[in-house]
Amino acid sequence: MPSSTPPTRIAILTGGGDCPGLNAVIRAVTKSLIGQCGAEVIGIEDGFLGLIERRVRALDWRSVSGILGMGGTLLGTSNTASPFNFQGRDVSGEVLAYARETLGLQALVAIGGDGTMTMAGRLSAMGLPVVGVPKTIDNDIACNERSFGFDTAVAIVTDALERVQTTGQSHGRVMVVETMGRYAGWIALEAGLAGAADVILLPEIAYDPDRVAAVCAERAGRQRYTVVCIAEGACAQGAGLTVERTVADSPDPLRLGGVGHVLRAQLESRLAVLGVKTDVRTTVLGHIQRGGSPTPFDRVLATRYGHAAAQAVQRGEFDCMVSLQRGEMVTVPLAEVVGRNRTVPLDHPLLRCARDIGVCLGD
Amino acid sequence: MPSSTPPTRIAILTGGGDCPGLNAVIRAVTKSLIGQCGAEVIGIEDGFLGLIERRVRALDWRSVSGILGMGGTLLGTSNTASPFNFQGRDVSGEVLAYARETLGLQALVAIGGDGTMTMAGRLSAMGLPVVGVPKTIDNDIACNERSFGFDTAVAIVTDALERVQTTGQSHGRVMVVETMGRYAGWIALEAGLAGAADVILLPEIAYDPDRVAAVCAERAGRQRYTVVCIAEGACAQGAGLTVERTVADSPDPLRLGGVGHVLRAQLESRLAVLGVKTDVRTTVLGHIQRGGSPTPFDRVLATRYGHAAAQAVQRGEFDCMVSLQRGEMVTVPLAEVVGRNRTVPLDHPLLRCARDIGVCLGD
Amino acid sequence: MPSSTPPTRIAILTGGGDCPGLNAVIRAVTKSLIGQCGAEVIGIEDGFLGLIERRVRALDWRSVSGILGMGGTLLGTSNTASPFNFQGRDVSGEVLAYARETLGLQALVAIGGDGTMTMAGRLSAMGLPVVGVPKTIDNDIACNERSFGFDTAVAIVTDALERVQTTGQSHGRVMVVETMGRYAGWIALEAGLAGAADVILLPEIAYDPDRVAAVCAERAGRQRYTVVCIAEGACAQGAGLTVERTVADSPDPLRLGGVGHVLRAQLESRLAVLGVKTDVRTTVLGHIQRGGSPTPFDRVLATRYGHAAAQAVQRGEFDCMVSLQRGEMVTVPLAEVVGRNRTVPLDHPLLRCARDIGVCLGD
Amino acid sequence: MPSSTPPTRIAILTGGGDCPGLNAVIRAVTKSLIGQCGAEVIGIEDGFLGLIERRVRALDWRSVSGILGMGGTLLGTSNTASPFNFQGRDVSGEVLAYARETLGLQALVAIGGDGTMTMAGRLSAMGLPVVGVPKTIDNDIACNERSFGFDTAVAIVTDALERVQTTGQSHGRVMVVETMGRYAGWIALEAGLAGAADVILLPEIAYDPDRVAAVCAERAGRQRYTVVCIAEGACAQGAGLTVERTVADSPDPLRLGGVGHVLRAQLESRLAVLGVKTDVRTTVLGHIQRGGSPTPFDRVLATRYGHAAAQAVQRGEFDCMVSLQRGEMVTVPLAEVVGRNRTVPLDHPLLRCARDIGVCLGD
Repeated sequence: MPSSTPPTRIAILTGGGDCPGLNAVIRAVTKSLIGQCGAEVIGIEDGFLGLIERRVRALDWRSVSGILGMGGTLLGTSNTASPFNFQGRDVSGEVLAYARETLGLQALVAIGGDGTMTMAGRLSAMGLPVVGVPKTIDNDIACNERSFGFDTAVAIVTDALERVQTTGQSHGRVMVVETMGRYAGWIALEAGLAGAADVILLPEIAYDPDRVAAVCAERAGRQRYTVVCIAEGACAQGAGLTVERTVADSPDPLRLGGVGHVLRAQLESRLAVLGVKTDVRTTVLGHIQRGGSPTPFDRVLATRYGHAAAQAVQRGEFDCMVSLQRGEMVTVPLAEVVGRNRTVPLDHPLLRCARDIGVCLGD
Repeated sequence: MPSSTPPTRIAILTGGGDCPGLNAVIRAVTKSLIGQCGAEVIGIEDGFLGLIERRVRALDWRSVSGILGMGGTLLGTSNTASPFNFQGRDVSGEVLAYARETLGLQALVAIGGDGTMTMAGRLSAMGLPVVGVPKTIDNDIACNERSFGFDTAVAIVTDALERVQTTGQSHGRVMVVETMGRYAGWIALEAGLAGAADVILLPEIAYDPDRVAAVCAERAGRQRYTVVCIAEGACAQGAGLTVERTVADSPDPLRLGGVGHVLRAQLESRLAVLGVKTDVRTTVLGHIQRGGSPTPFDRVLATRYGHAAAQAVQRGEFDCMVSLQRGEMVTVPLAEVVGRNRTVPLDHPLLRCARDIGVCLGD
Repeated sequence: MPSSTPPTRIAILTGGGDCPGLNAVIRAVTKSLIGQCGAEVIGIEDGFLGLIERRVRALDWRSVSGILGMGGTLLGTSNTASPFNFQGRDVSGEVLAYARETLGLQALVAIGGDGTMTMAGRLSAMGLPVVGVPKTIDNDIACNERSFGFDTAVAIVTDALERVQTTGQSHGRVMVVETMGRYAGWIALEAGLAGAADVILLPEIAYDPDRVAAVCAERAGRQRYTVVCIAEGACAQGAGLTVERTVADSPDPLRLGGVGHVLRAQLESRLAVLGVKTDVRTTVLGHIQRGGSPTPFDRVLATRYGHAAAQAVQRGEFDCMVSLQRGEMVTVPLAEVVGRNRTVPLDHPLLRCARDIGVCLGD
Repeated sequence: MPSSTPPTRIAILTGGGDCPGLNAVIRAVTKSLIGQCGAEVIGIEDGFLGLIERRVRALDWRSVSGILGMGGTLLGTSNTASPFNFQGRDVSGEVLAYARETLGLQALVAIGGDGTMTMAGRLSAMGLPVVGVPKTIDNDIACNERSFGFDTAVAIVTDALERVQTTGQSHGRVMVVETMGRYAGWIALEAGLAGAADVILLPEIAYDPDRVAAVCAERAGRQRYTVVCIAEGACAQGAGLTVERTVADSPDPLRLGGVGHVLRAQLESRLAVLGVKTDVRTTVLGHIQRGGSPTPFDRVLATRYGHAAAQAVQRGEFDCMVSLQRGEMVTVPLAEVVGRNRTVPLDHPLLRCARDIGVCLGD
């Protein structure tokens, strides 16, 4: 239901883990709203925590100048603060009153992942007009085909795969690189393809350690080395459906190391049985995957998301998330997004492509 | 019309200017065809010139190993050689006979731009089954929404914009960066957005030098500096429709320099009239935009193109070009592609986005 | 002559062309002086122009936070403003009075090239204690073996050489890349070595176009391509001692293009005579060589320079320039530095090294 | 004692862990020896293992073409194979006979670390003329001030520090990055400076966890975040002299994680006591630090090492290692190098510099 009067006071917050491109979204929302409808723009600090603790600041043209290429979020973020359960209390009423009355907000642009979208949806239902912007380094938010920050993460993992490959070649080793992706394997899949990984293991496809070991053994004879790209959420066949169970079933010293170390142990024992003398080394990339300056692709994409959110605000279209679908910016109701997860479908063309050029997917 | 027997001997060639990702396409075509249907794959050297001069080599798994991240094309390329006019003669009959009888080709995968697609279409009409793969650094081939190599070019230009910006800021200058894009302004548009250019000038929108000078003058007072990203094919209003006329109308010493230098002269004289003491400096990026290792995005995209071409060959679908449309790989008849150009439509969302965040498009 | 009381008010300025690492120097000077002797630090805007026009700002811990990796100079710079000739007048007396009395400066840290060092020396002689920090992207300041920003410039040129090489290989071309270096060829020499250039032409060694053409012709038969790295100040044998004369003697359309285009014309005509069908293409890198974020090497080096300057100030050692000699930070009297130029000695080990691995130096 | 006849058959091997720049050394040795004295050059596969197992190949101009920028070593390497203890046997006699009689070697260029230099010294004593080239990613070989590969490792760590910093800023966290450097902290020191780490912990300076926690707590109030760069060999005061003991003293689940995780636990408990609510996150960079393409600096440096080794061979100067001292290539007797370690001296200027600009070194 479009409103007739243009909004004049709009707030922005960033929630959940940081992600390259957040500042580019903030910049595009702010510049669009100021430039197009002369809105006052308010930045809320540290996600919903800032709404609860009443920490805000004005955003103008100058405060968003020069931030396009910066990693992180200048507004700060928090992973867990919820107006519906803050130190055991539901403070959503106070938050709503603060937002509408004290701040005089006509709308809130909430940039975040599934948790942020869920809270945004509930605040929207209570009467705070909200536009969501999907943020997920894993590219796994429902109804959205490519999120900003993902291209940057893929670039970082690709770089790491290329680096360990030279070590693998020089020493004749199996090099395992563990990437982010607890439920969805997009990063491992695209980076694995871009970094010429020989084996790509995803949460969506339970892998057979014997099959992976056989690939390593065969390659040890010819190319000497194997590069394996494994998502943190991948698990072996029969090991249960979640990484937690895989790790729980593993021998003790590996528990802290993540699935990349579990796989290392699995391969070492199998390669020994096969009589293949090849070292296996694991690198867990961790936090370097989500920080730093966004790629040019992500800067443009994040700018498009921010601009689309500002346009939705101007059209008076709320309770929705801006979304990239078939290459175009659209909006989808928040209700269709929350609580769902976009994993790699088993018939996805990239999986077919990977198999056809000889990549082992572990099955 | 699908053929019933699977093809067993397939050739690949790369034509026209080089482009990051060519080797990734060659690799994916070769690995897919060898792996999926046991085809013999033949590499033709230097585009159609190799077909004319009978220079070919076998491509196997080993010869395409390790080339995913390499720039250029291992097969070599030529810009101009045509079977239909080779040193003044039509040698297409000999070429066809060589391809079909001597080489025993069931199909040809031709990777190239409009010229290559045109020749491929004519050879296809003469009876050589052809699948085209679009290659254009400018992203301007018809029926195809994003070509490999484009992301890499955008990344290089973005890096250059960021570099000259620091000089502009330090000295209080107008920094002009001239990019590729003779007929289509995609590179200037996306890189301009990713590199935070203040002014973006495209072949599709004739620019008003007075308007650009006014932006520079206003910024000289506030931010001190202005970054202008101009496509080589951009031209001033009233200067005619092509860059050639713009340059022809310019004072003599600028003729060789390209439109970036024309714009510099236009701005210098106008800023002097306005009493603004600001130096203007131009950088013409030239060949560095099309060489070097492809970005991870382009490696995945090029791999998808190559895989899609191999699939078309396997399906017996010829006289077509593989194409990215709405995020998916499809095929389009060659006849629909050749002789057309994909320029930036004046109602493209990115233009709206650029204007709304305050970028001057020169009009 | 060391002073007995510690200095308490110190100013910094950056003069001449911008250079990666300037902000790192400013940061290290400021942090060291504040941290070590509780000094007040004053930033002067736009080099000596800011001293003349009385534009200064306080620098504290916060204002230099986060600038280590930023290109350019946050203080701004100017190329030409001189207290000894400002709009036709000698204003050095006023400048001195302003610095000593109005600002109450105990010392000035002047970061710049030969022009800045010259002015700093004259002000020092008039009674303003000065410590100079050498800044030259060309690495050509006397008594100093490696300046910050040089490593970054070499990295940018190396990247460009690698990019054009793939085009050269794909098309079988001679690719000429023109780098900075009007009087000293350090950038062309190191980048040429790092980027595997086949020919490296320096201002210090007049080149024989016939010799270069012969190398290109021979390589056209074997490797198909040749990469030439030429410093902007290089000139052909017999063409006179300066690039100006080389260009002046050249046919008209090349005048604007720089020596890279002169060489292109020289090679094209000679290759035609030799019957070698090879295109020659020139890229002039221009301003991208001096902008953008410094390499890690340059950040450490610039930090060392800034720290050394602060230490000299604390020791009361003035009228000197901090300098890197045999890997260590020392000071040299300004009088030994100004008016001199550090070019590549003809017996420099890197020249021997280049020749011995088969690089043509044009002679 | 220089030999009178020029050597005509020279072998090269690479031993120990791989390192960016190995191929650049191989290329420079080969090109110099072929070009300067027409030598035949033999590449030995997988370090001393190839000498033992008699696996060699000829190296000519073509085989070292295009490898300058490639990571790893095209010859392969092995960490442990020794002619003096191969599967429990001393096979040095056979190796010597093979090298001198079967291969007819006049000299061996051995590129490697302390282990390789030790074996090279023993073979030299037995009568095989050897020139060593120091290879250490940690920059810790005695008598050598800067080794190739080190600049690349510093660049990778710097990039990681910048990435995690944005996460630290966004979330208000302590970000710990663990780098290579078991005995020498050069990488952590230079990368820490280049990446603006707030705390740098080295093996050479036992750190006080209370002191580090106090820095983190103080920064949590002001800048919100802290970046800690810790070398893998760093250890807490009182925890003993080696990392092994630090880890051994730690609670069990941390044993596998390395010192970065030990520090995390130390900081978490202390910050909790101090009442500071700040998450601590650790990233262990691992193998990505030693792979991939060398920086331009390292390519030039590795080329100089290779050229210097070839010159030593030509001069007939053996039983030595080429070495960089005060910016120049010299040779030192192998006996002076082996068994010693170049750690960061406690009076090193960079330590002073770090302290003076406010970096905490843990003491």
